[in-house]
Amino acid sequence: MPERSPSAARPAAEDAGAPTGAAGEGALIAQGLRYVNAWKGRTVVVKFGGSVLEANGGGTLAQDLVLLKGAGIHPVLVHGGGPEITRVLERLGRASTFVNGLRVTDAETMEVVEMVLAGRTNKALVSMIIQHGGQAVGLSGKDGRLLVARKRQGDVDLGQVGEIQEVHPELLIRLSEQGYIPVVASLGIGEDGASYNLNADTAAGALAVAVGASKFILLTDVQGVYRDYDGERRLISDLRAADAEALIRDGSISRGMIPKVEACLEALRGGVPSAHIISGSVPHALLVELFTERGIGTMLLPS
Amino acid sequence: MPERSPSAARPAAEDAGAPTGAAGEGALIAQGLRYVNAWKGRTVVVKFGGSVLEANGGGTLAQDLVLLKGAGIHPVLVHGGGPEITRVLERLGRASTFVNGLRVTDAETMEVVEMVLAGRTNKALVSMIIQHGGQAVGLSGKDGRLLVARKRQGDVDLGQVGEIQEVHPELLIRLSEQGYIPVVASLGIGEDGASYNLNADTAAGALAVAVGASKFILLTDVQGVYRDYDGERRLISDLRAADAEALIRDGSISRGMIPKVEACLEALRGGVPSAHIISGSVPHALLVELFTERGIGTMLLPS
Amino acid sequence: MPERSPSAARPAAEDAGAPTGAAGEGALIAQGLRYVNAWKGRTVVVKFGGSVLEANGGGTLAQDLVLLKGAGIHPVLVHGGGPEITRVLERLGRASTFVNGLRVTDAETMEVVEMVLAGRTNKALVSMIIQHGGQAVGLSGKDGRLLVARKRQGDVDLGQVGEIQEVHPELLIRLSEQGYIPVVASLGIGEDGASYNLNADTAAGALAVAVGASKFILLTDVQGVYRDYDGERRLISDLRAADAEALIRDGSISRGMIPKVEACLEALRGGVPSAHIISGSVPHALLVELFTERGIGTMLLPS
Amino acid sequence: MPERSPSAARPAAEDAGAPTGAAGEGALIAQGLRYVNAWKGRTVVVKFGGSVLEANGGGTLAQDLVLLKGAGIHPVLVHGGGPEITRVLERLGRASTFVNGLRVTDAETMEVVEMVLAGRTNKALVSMIIQHGGQAVGLSGKDGRLLVARKRQGDVDLGQVGEIQEVHPELLIRLSEQGYIPVVASLGIGEDGASYNLNADTAAGALAVAVGASKFILLTDVQGVYRDYDGERRLISDLRAADAEALIRDGSISRGMIPKVEACLEALRGGVPSAHIISGSVPHALLVELFTERGIGTMLLPS
Amino acid sequence: MPERSPSAARPAAEDAGAPTGAAGEGALIAQGLRYVNAWKGRTVVVKFGGSVLEANGGGTLAQDLVLLKGAGIHPVLVHGGGPEITRVLERLGRASTFVNGLRVTDAETMEVVEMVLAGRTNKALVSMIIQHGGQAVGLSGKDGRLLVARKRQGDVDLGQVGEIQEVHPELLIRLSEQGYIPVVASLGIGEDGASYNLNADTAAGALAVAVGASKFILLTDVQGVYRDYDGERRLISDLRAADAEALIRDGSISRGMIPKVEACLEALRGGVPSAHIISGSVPHALLVELFTERGIGTMLLPS
Amino acid sequence: MPERSPSAARPAAEDAGAPTGAAGEGALIAQGLRYVNAWKGRTVVVKFGGSVLEANGGGTLAQDLVLLKGAGIHPVLVHGGGPEITRVLERLGRASTFVNGLRVTDAETMEVVEMVLAGRTNKALVSMIIQHGGQAVGLSGKDGRLLVARKRQGDVDLGQVGEIQEVHPELLIRLSEQGYIPVVASLGIGEDGASYNLNADTAAGALAVAVGASKFILLTDVQGVYRDYDGERRLISDLRAADAEALIRDGSISRGMIPKVEACLEALRGGVPSAHIISGSVPHALLVELFTERGIGTMLLPS
Repeated sequence: MPERSPSAARPAAEDAGAPTGAAGEGALIAQGLRYVNAWKGRTVVVKFGGSVLEANGGGTLAQDLVLLKGAGIHPVLVHGGGPEITRVLERLGRASTFVNGLRVTDAETMEVVEMVLAGRTNKALVSMIIQHGGQAVGLSGKDGRLLVARKRQGDVDLGQVGEIQEVHPELLIRLSEQGYIPVVASLGIGEDGASYNLNADTAAGALAVAVGASKFILLTDVQGVYRDYDGERRLISDLRAADAEALIRDGSISRGMIPKVEACLEALRGGVPSAHIISGSVPHALLVELFTERGIGTMLLPS
Repeated sequence: MPERSPSAARPAAEDAGAPTGAAGEGALIAQGLRYVNAWKGRTVVVKFGGSVLEANGGGTLAQDLVLLKGAGIHPVLVHGGGPEITRVLERLGRASTFVNGLRVTDAETMEVVEMVLAGRTNKALVSMIIQHGGQAVGLSGKDGRLLVARKRQGDVDLGQVGEIQEVHPELLIRLSEQGYIPVVASLGIGEDGASYNLNADTAAGALAVAVGASKFILLTDVQGVYRDYDGERRLISDLRAADAEALIRDGSISRGMIPKVEACLEALRGGVPSAHIISGSVPHALLVELFTERGIGTMLLPS
Repeated sequence: MPERSPSAARPAAEDAGAPTGAAGEGALIAQGLRYVNAWKGRTVVVKFGGSVLEANGGGTLAQDLVLLKGAGIHPVLVHGGGPEITRVLERLGRASTFVNGLRVTDAETMEVVEMVLAGRTNKALVSMIIQHGGQAVGLSGKDGRLLVARKRQGDVDLGQVGEIQEVHPELLIRLSEQGYIPVVASLGIGEDGASYNLNADTAAGALAVAVGASKFILLTDVQGVYRDYDGERRLISDLRAADAEALIRDGSISRGMIPKVEACLEALRGGVPSAHIISGSVPHALLVELFTERGIGTMLLPS
Repeated sequence: MPERSPSAARPAAEDAGAPTGAAGEGALIAQGLRYVNAWKGRTVVVKFGGSVLEANGGGTLAQDLVLLKGAGIHPVLVHGGGPEITRVLERLGRASTFVNGLRVTDAETMEVVEMVLAGRTNKALVSMIIQHGGQAVGLSGKDGRLLVARKRQGDVDLGQVGEIQEVHPELLIRLSEQGYIPVVASLGIGEDGASYNLNADTAAGALAVAVGASKFILLTDVQGVYRDYDGERRLISDLRAADAEALIRDGSISRGMIPKVEACLEALRGGVPSAHIISGSVPHALLVELFTERGIGTMLLPS
Repeated sequence: MPERSPSAARPAAEDAGAPTGAAGEGALIAQGLRYVNAWKGRTVVVKFGGSVLEANGGGTLAQDLVLLKGAGIHPVLVHGGGPEITRVLERLGRASTFVNGLRVTDAETMEVVEMVLAGRTNKALVSMIIQHGGQAVGLSGKDGRLLVARKRQGDVDLGQVGEIQEVHPELLIRLSEQGYIPVVASLGIGEDGASYNLNADTAAGALAVAVGASKFILLTDVQGVYRDYDGERRLISDLRAADAEALIRDGSISRGMIPKVEACLEALRGGVPSAHIISGSVPHALLVELFTERGIGTMLLPS
Repeated sequence: MPERSPSAARPAAEDAGAPTGAAGEGALIAQGLRYVNAWKGRTVVVKFGGSVLEANGGGTLAQDLVLLKGAGIHPVLVHGGGPEITRVLERLGRASTFVNGLRVTDAETMEVVEMVLAGRTNKALVSMIIQHGGQAVGLSGKDGRLLVARKRQGDVDLGQVGEIQEVHPELLIRLSEQGYIPVVASLGIGEDGASYNLNADTAAGALAVAVGASKFILLTDVQGVYRDYDGERRLISDLRAADAEALIRDGSISRGMIPKVEACLEALRGGVPSAHIISGSVPHALLVELFTERGIGTMLLPS
């Protein structure tokens, strides 16, 4: 299993060793500039889960996205909004049913899903970015036929839960080039115009592939992927795709983490050079992961 | 009071007389091409009210917008969604209160207004346009800081009812130029990022001015502006601004029509060459108003 | 033999049935816009015979060309001028001799041909287009080496009757893109700078191929191609290339029509998607053929 | 009266003295390059009279124009065609009548004028330029509404003799920039589309002003402007506008030369920096006038 | 006297307090990105003295310039080379004479000055930048007539010591835009092509004004400008122009520092927003001064 | 052995015979314009040896380069500076040692070579071009990594004598396109940033290949390549590559001329269409070689 080490996905750092401390201020800035240069003009797709938003209002996320954009790096934010959907359904007197972690989505539930994702979470994130001085545009996967979907195939009928068929990223690319930070709600549009409820991790990964992102970053409520080392649970810093698949097979990667790692693997297979699972609650976690040699969470790389 | 007659806002029609009938097919096409040439490359802002959508699912509106776009004319669709908002509020067990036709909008109501407008009506219109082969992008006045608003000044506290302070139309103009039909929900964003509930007629008029539209068209549930001629109620075809103001003063234009005429007058004052009030329920009403000499509703012109 | 029916060369019309009648005005406009969208940015080469000009001064031709240009479609007008040439030769006391329909063209006759075509018919057409508000530029096949020709090979010496060797369409394409309507007299230039008398139908077809025209339209003094159906002579609406060749072989297509159909077939072989033979004396025939599902003459399509 | 001497209209020549002779070959080339540099990218309007064409088939004119174009200088050729018009009229049994040197032009004469100028002389010049490897486009003042004219005002009714009202040089400028050498027949178009017979010297001067030419050159059948010096008739090399006007007033400049000098003065008044009257029958006269310090004819400069 | 404090010349730092320490890594990066955004696309002129090069081979200077360029900031390096000139003159057996700190420069000395500055120091700096992965182009003030000078006016004849008359910065601007780091030796060219020896501080300041630099930075062998505070000598962090002038008048700023402060004041007068005097021997001093709130030397601002 | 005769490398001259003499002035200009047209927009690399500069200050070279540039031809000047290097070394009390015509270059000698070439000869040539009205930029092979070299391989250790490994001509091409005349000192830069002394003929040939020059011209102190014809020594006007190789093999081309002819052959092998060896001391030799049919020296062509 590879420990975090210099790799193609991170620009070579000339100044090895700890970059902090009073005397190291200049060295730290030099390191930062090296990374700015490496990622400049590139696109980074960031998945942000609703539960993180609930906890701390998104923390430094909006600020970090605006700083990235200002430095010439193009972030695209993709979000779901599960907890808030459940809450609004409750207020309307409707229960939420899940099968294998997927919300059973009948027509009326779909209406609520769409209203909450595209009308509430999406616009709240847009407001936050604008408040930090950025230019944000909130979209759903229906706008510009960004995410064309169909009814998810499977044994159980989950209603309007969809699976992605085509991605049309032109709108995202244009808005990014024109200085906007696109914020995308994980909804899909059918060939017949119908709405589909999409898994946000999967949607974000598919968009990362389609826009040719240089990085795919999942903001979660944990620090990254852990494993046991001689009985001690330790964070994995670097993880090759083949090793991740092995860890899923041998059960080391547990239930809740599986779909996240799968979304990362799918992005890697589609040509995204690296995928990251980091904590959404640590201030500036996004910047530390992008601009330091050590990083802060788990970086997945192709085998 | 001027009757509908040739004017600067309509290109001179060489083939006078009725353009229909078997022999007149060629003449009708010639007339149509003359109008295509006149409006080509221009922007037309269309305001569409929620109640019309309820009635007939928007009729031929989506189809007409796609045909306009295809012919090189750039439509921008602006919408409200009052009836649907009331319905969702009811389902949540909340009553709707209106003062002078404006919805009293406390914080919780604002959440519902935003969810319904940006998450439901907006995306339904986007789907309809896409179904007819167009490229649509749904936005709210918050995206790209399109409509910056503040709390409406006045005697009565209406909560988060807003009035427009600034319009930033760049995003609309870019999307239009790139082949998209923008669909805008009438929401505003405060300097502090707060959401505001805006009157859709007013928001549409302000956008028409800001994008330099050549026409501002209000789709309503009536045929246009009427007045009494010797006891008979007749549709006014052409109406100069000064005459419209006189008709409001003498009571000829009644309650419900006043804010619509005011929005038109405001657009004319801002430099839009003509404003139109037409029925949203007549098939292809938009095309008939734009591409024939006679038109179908009431055209307001500067004095 | 195919009757006129929906085909690749005509955009699918959603509103089937007769588009005329008072109630159908909107539907007619919708249909027209669909065609404008389909042909926008495309080039249409129109051949106009001298005899038609004689009869009614060109009728609505100039007006129709200006309307097409205004709607974003690029017409190129190609013309001959046989009757006027004969008349001027007569005034100079010279007889006209024809062999197989081709004018025997000695040096002195060539001078008259060139003067009439490039100096008279060409400039008369330019004037007419300018009178209808268009920007026209009159050219001959010598200008910009548009049509490079050599002496026609054959048993009989016809003098300076030429056959086309090369077409250099750059000048036409540039002028079209810059907003001009090019008007081209059917003259050719030899490698040695000599003038050649070219058949106008052939020259127009060759230009249609060279500029990549989407349509090639022959304005003639008949309604189109006819055939006998059970003793009754009926206009053929749609005609596949293979069927046209069969009709020529079995004698159904008669003498005068043969070179016109041949020019159409040559254009189809060169990649022009459709060729049309219509009457030049019906008002707006060009528009009816281009913008309605039924058309007005005979449309030839590849087999 | 200024003798030919270094002036603003000719770039300063560093190598004074005779540039010919075996040893001076390098100096001659150096001088030539200095002039190429000075006139590069500039436009030169050359007026060529029909009588010169008759005499020697245009001599080296076509070759010189092609060389100028190749060196990055943009020539525009303007021509009349009086003698040929007279000859064709004679063949048609019609006499030519002149009043004050202007041809009385009834409707039938106008037809012949147009046929000869636009259909014969114009295309002959186009052929000659193409033969020397240039790209030529033949136009009349009607094409692109280049020369808008009206009936000439005056005591005597001269029929369709016109005077210029507006010049629209865009077509000329575009063709020049795209590598073509425009050849313009001196015809005008009325607001009603009618044809007008224009004086070619005047038309050429008006075009020189409109295109912002750096030089206006009249090719004639004499060496330039002469005057008497102590009984001896000598060519004037440089002539200031004020002096030219004085020479006209005192009769030193005689009948036939007056309209040529007037056309030059009109060009100077319109901002053309220099106007030249040179012989069209001396080989490469155009090049010698443009690329040597001494020149070959008479150069007129603003006072 | 103003202490270093937030001002227009430094972007507002949201994260106040010490940015170092393990927990502050993210905050430090955020601050750095804010500065990258602020200076992106701007030009920074850096003056580098020969004596610093002697001491430590330029330290981190070349690396810092390459990092700036990579982050989208455009550095221009200007240099003198006094000590090396003196050394080469000594090897040639010539003494160096100075009047008021200016080298008396006879013709033979000028040759040596030019050889050393343009042929040795300049190319050594170019090599260093290329070694760190940058694209450098070495120039003198003669190339592209960058610095046009004349003999310095004054009581004493200093030979070819020059004063700047004109600056032609086009070459610098183009090279900067094309990705090169220009390195400029402080030589001038006379109207007659003669070489002039220019003071490097003055030349750098003049270039900063001419290219519209956002910052002018003097790398020296001291930490910045000092003054006495109650008998204690302390570094001044921020200094307004008027205060600097007062300190010169009252003798607080001593001999050697005067010309450096004068060059800074001259740059401020010419519109450069800030000028900095910092130590060239502290590693990454350039980066610390540019990318931290506190900076490291003395920043001069307009009054 | 081919005598000088019309060939692909020289545009066909229509006016054969001697172009001089009073009557032939026009013909001479016509011929010159033909050549301007042929070489316009092309690049010509000129190698200028230091010894020529010594003799007559460069003669008309600077003037000729400026005239070429003005006529739209792009010269690049490459130079060495052997004699001046020897002189400066002498003044420093150091002897010059040569092995097979190559200067043994220890570290200290390299410093002097670099100072003299880049700091003295280079800037002197820049001044001369600027004096004649051109825009010159002096560079060495180190700037922009123009000439990447390594230590010359061979039996004898010559110190820092280099051989070229890569050429990066982008900087030259950009400066040429922007109107500058680049002047390049024949120095190379190692991968480690070290300086290398390069043979100027070889460096010039390599640059000619890399920039895609149309001509490579060696200015020397002889008239060209000579050979014996029946005991009489005659200048060879045209020389095919295979013949040149034969003349080297049979000893007809002697010692000093061998490296020059080799540099020409290397340029021809790299795709330069013709290479020329001419005298640098004949006034305007460059122009006579480029713009006349006969030329003045020896033109080498591919076999």
